[in-house]
Amino acid sequence: MILDPLAPRFIMEKNRALDAVFNLRSVAVVGVARGEDFNTGRLFLDHIIDYGFKGRIYPVNPKGGEVRGLKIHPSLKEIPGRVDYVICCIPAPLVPQLIRDSAAKGVKAVGIFTSGFSELGTRQGREREDEIKRLAHATGVRVIGPNCLGIHSPKAGFSYVPDFPRESGDVSFLCQSGGHSTYLVRAAAARGIRFSKVISYGNGTDIDETDLLKYFEQDPETKMIAAYIEGVKDGRGFYRTLEETALHKPVVILKGGRTAAGSAVAASHTGSLASSIGVWRDALRQAGAISVGSLDEMVDMLVTLSYLPRLGGRRVAMVGGGGGAGVLATDDWAENGFVLPRLPEQVRQAWKAAVGNEAGTILSNPLDIPTIGSGQGSVYDALAELHAFDGIDLLVFHVPVRGVMISVSFAAAVFEDESQTILKVHQETGKPVAMIVHCQANADGWNLSAKQVKRYYEAGLPVYYSVASAARAIDRFLWYTANRRMPE
Amino acid sequence: MILDPLAPRFIMEKNRALDAVFNLRSVAVVGVARGEDFNTGRLFLDHIIDYGFKGRIYPVNPKGGEVRGLKIHPSLKEIPGRVDYVICCIPAPLVPQLIRDSAAKGVKAVGIFTSGFSELGTRQGREREDEIKRLAHATGVRVIGPNCLGIHSPKAGFSYVPDFPRESGDVSFLCQSGGHSTYLVRAAAARGIRFSKVISYGNGTDIDETDLLKYFEQDPETKMIAAYIEGVKDGRGFYRTLEETALHKPVVILKGGRTAAGSAVAASHTGSLASSIGVWRDALRQAGAISVGSLDEMVDMLVTLSYLPRLGGRRVAMVGGGGGAGVLATDDWAENGFVLPRLPEQVRQAWKAAVGNEAGTILSNPLDIPTIGSGQGSVYDALAELHAFDGIDLLVFHVPVRGVMISVSFAAAVFEDESQTILKVHQETGKPVAMIVHCQANADGWNLSAKQVKRYYEAGLPVYYSVASAARAIDRFLWYTANRRMPE
Repeated sequence: MILDPLAPRFIMEKNRALDAVFNLRSVAVVGVARGEDFNTGRLFLDHIIDYGFKGRIYPVNPKGGEVRGLKIHPSLKEIPGRVDYVICCIPAPLVPQLIRDSAAKGVKAVGIFTSGFSELGTRQGREREDEIKRLAHATGVRVIGPNCLGIHSPKAGFSYVPDFPRESGDVSFLCQSGGHSTYLVRAAAARGIRFSKVISYGNGTDIDETDLLKYFEQDPETKMIAAYIEGVKDGRGFYRTLEETALHKPVVILKGGRTAAGSAVAASHTGSLASSIGVWRDALRQAGAISVGSLDEMVDMLVTLSYLPRLGGRRVAMVGGGGGAGVLATDDWAENGFVLPRLPEQVRQAWKAAVGNEAGTILSNPLDIPTIGSGQGSVYDALAELHAFDGIDLLVFHVPVRGVMISVSFAAAVFEDESQTILKVHQETGKPVAMIVHCQANADGWNLSAKQVKRYYEAGLPVYYSVASAARAIDRFLWYTANRRMPE
Repeated sequence: MILDPLAPRFIMEKNRALDAVFNLRSVAVVGVARGEDFNTGRLFLDHIIDYGFKGRIYPVNPKGGEVRGLKIHPSLKEIPGRVDYVICCIPAPLVPQLIRDSAAKGVKAVGIFTSGFSELGTRQGREREDEIKRLAHATGVRVIGPNCLGIHSPKAGFSYVPDFPRESGDVSFLCQSGGHSTYLVRAAAARGIRFSKVISYGNGTDIDETDLLKYFEQDPETKMIAAYIEGVKDGRGFYRTLEETALHKPVVILKGGRTAAGSAVAASHTGSLASSIGVWRDALRQAGAISVGSLDEMVDMLVTLSYLPRLGGRRVAMVGGGGGAGVLATDDWAENGFVLPRLPEQVRQAWKAAVGNEAGTILSNPLDIPTIGSGQGSVYDALAELHAFDGIDLLVFHVPVRGVMISVSFAAAVFEDESQTILKVHQETGKPVAMIVHCQANADGWNLSAKQVKRYYEAGLPVYYSVASAARAIDRFLWYTANRRMPE
């Protein structure tokens, strides 16, 4: 008998298992190659060690031996201590027995990396997956996956990728694709987003998107939820849960398989069932979730929710970027429903006093001034005037990092001065500020801009890579804050 | 009397002047700071020297002196030799006299960096610009600008930015914004586009967009034209010229100021008059030009026109990227009108023989295989089978450069092997191939991906940074090739 997935007892069991896994203190990696050999089990083991997991790590391989200074145990039951979490990297036909062994060992959950289940689209694949689901229900061992990377939990010092940030944050991310989880965590990390919990849950045969939403809804460490979903097992249950969750926390969702063709590929990726994107979008909107169209848009949205305060309206003033950049930027703001009001004479005069009428200087809105520089004296005053002007709701600084237009060391000094000035005035006035840091195509430019981005997000500002992406995200943010709660 | 700008004699005069300027062998930079001082004149001088101009360089400043080992001449007329081109960095009120002096010296054209003309929106600004225009017509000295960076002509060894490529290519670019010209040339250079001629022409008071289109139309070194335009002086003349030009060469156009707000900013940037974007878009389409929405889309389009052969249709096969990436990629292709046909059993079997049924492998379309590797034996055979399948028109390889997922040196070796295999099979079969090289957010990843991008474009393949941008550009390309000529 399959239990009602929304039955309270069942939910509690799953939540307890997820609690145990995200706070794990011991892990077994089953299917680790020995000696010089290399396989996925070994990759997981390396990454867990390299990320710095301080709990017990038990490699398992029936042939025994040693790897990276750790004894390889022939089986789960021969491991001396408690095992909170098992990572399964053995072939699909052997997985059912591993679940039984896990139950005997008192394991809370198994993360199954192994693929070869419903995503194959074959009867055998479906039957194998059904058996795993049945075993999960019968034994109480919760299954994450199959066909997934499992969990990232910095609080527990545990991850599947060694270069993910060590610090915890307040975003939790449920992701049906392992690859997308690594892309999103890295891209978001570069812009100041840290995660409380990330779970790559693959086919979601036992622990599914609805369970994870419910878990993150009640998790006090999760203030905001991101989700990449290819298909939903139980549409009605998911919708009810989403509606409830979105009342308390922002939920940002990217749907994979928004076209019929994409949906068919989702079926072969995670065994997901097709659904119409029109129905999806309407349902997400009605449930109060924030729907995005790509992973990069998801990062933009998380940055906005994390770093932008509630805005009074859609009046933007923009500084910098260059003359042509100001033209295209104005188009981008206007197309997303923002206005760039005329600046009062007092503000314009302050800028004129500060920077004169140098070539290329445009003293309207956008204000195109060559460089803010160290902000000594009058530039500082002009910036303060601009911040003080109550006819705008958001101040945007557009910094194109030009790489070798001028020498890199000179550029680095200019940006350093500029950021100090911007941050000083911002801290003194508290006006909402967004940064556009535009990296140009070379490695020096990349390094320079990455440093600037870090400096700004560490000071609490949202940073975007283009005006268009900022305008789109902030437009969604305004829509969201007008209708739903803000993240605390 | 103002001559009819489309009168044949007038066109010939302008073309001759542009010929002289793009083939310049001597330049005077008027308004160069002396000694330790720094100004824009000095920046131009430095950049011309650092780019490696082999012609004569004459700094000018009434106070005389020396800079970077060159004698500073007190005035144009005291320069001993011929001067082909003058760069003007002196204040606006002094510009008219410089044009008269240029005429006396037999200079062909003056590039006016100085701003403070019609873009100010003041009567004084407009009058100053009118005077310059009148002087240009009266003296025959052609004026580029004012309010511009001037010309980049690698054939003449001349540029305004020292890190622009030294090699000539077959794209010419007319750009109303100096900043956009530097962004575009750099971003396009990183993807294998080289320019024959670039001109930042600012307010375009004498040499305007219509003159430049006409010039590039007849220029045998220009195979393709890119344009960033904020406003057109003579709509009818421009349209006629565009229609004529587009019959012979692809013209890719980005309009700045597509919203009313953006248009107003364009007026303060380059003194451009407003026009409705709807009218613009229709006119561009009817004239046979290719309209794009951003600078990055312009690069995508130039890459496509330069590197993609004519395609037989919209049937795409894609390899790599990861399972979730395959789902979102399929959405992106489908939304742009492409289909990903089912691969025949023979192809699937060849892949199965090559890579087995490893975890994460998906043997449909997209083919998601963990790595192509060195392509020894069966992987090479599988790739050859895929290339030989005549049910597809375009083969796409999706390479996410994962940075430190694995060690950078290991990743570099993997990518090296992979590119050799892909290029070998491509060269043997000649099937149209497009590359998606997706750089993840860190400097190592950037460097790795930049190397891969270079390797692929040097082998003659178009490279894109995302599936969505590739699909959009190739969709436009198919529309264009179905209706217009292809670049030779």
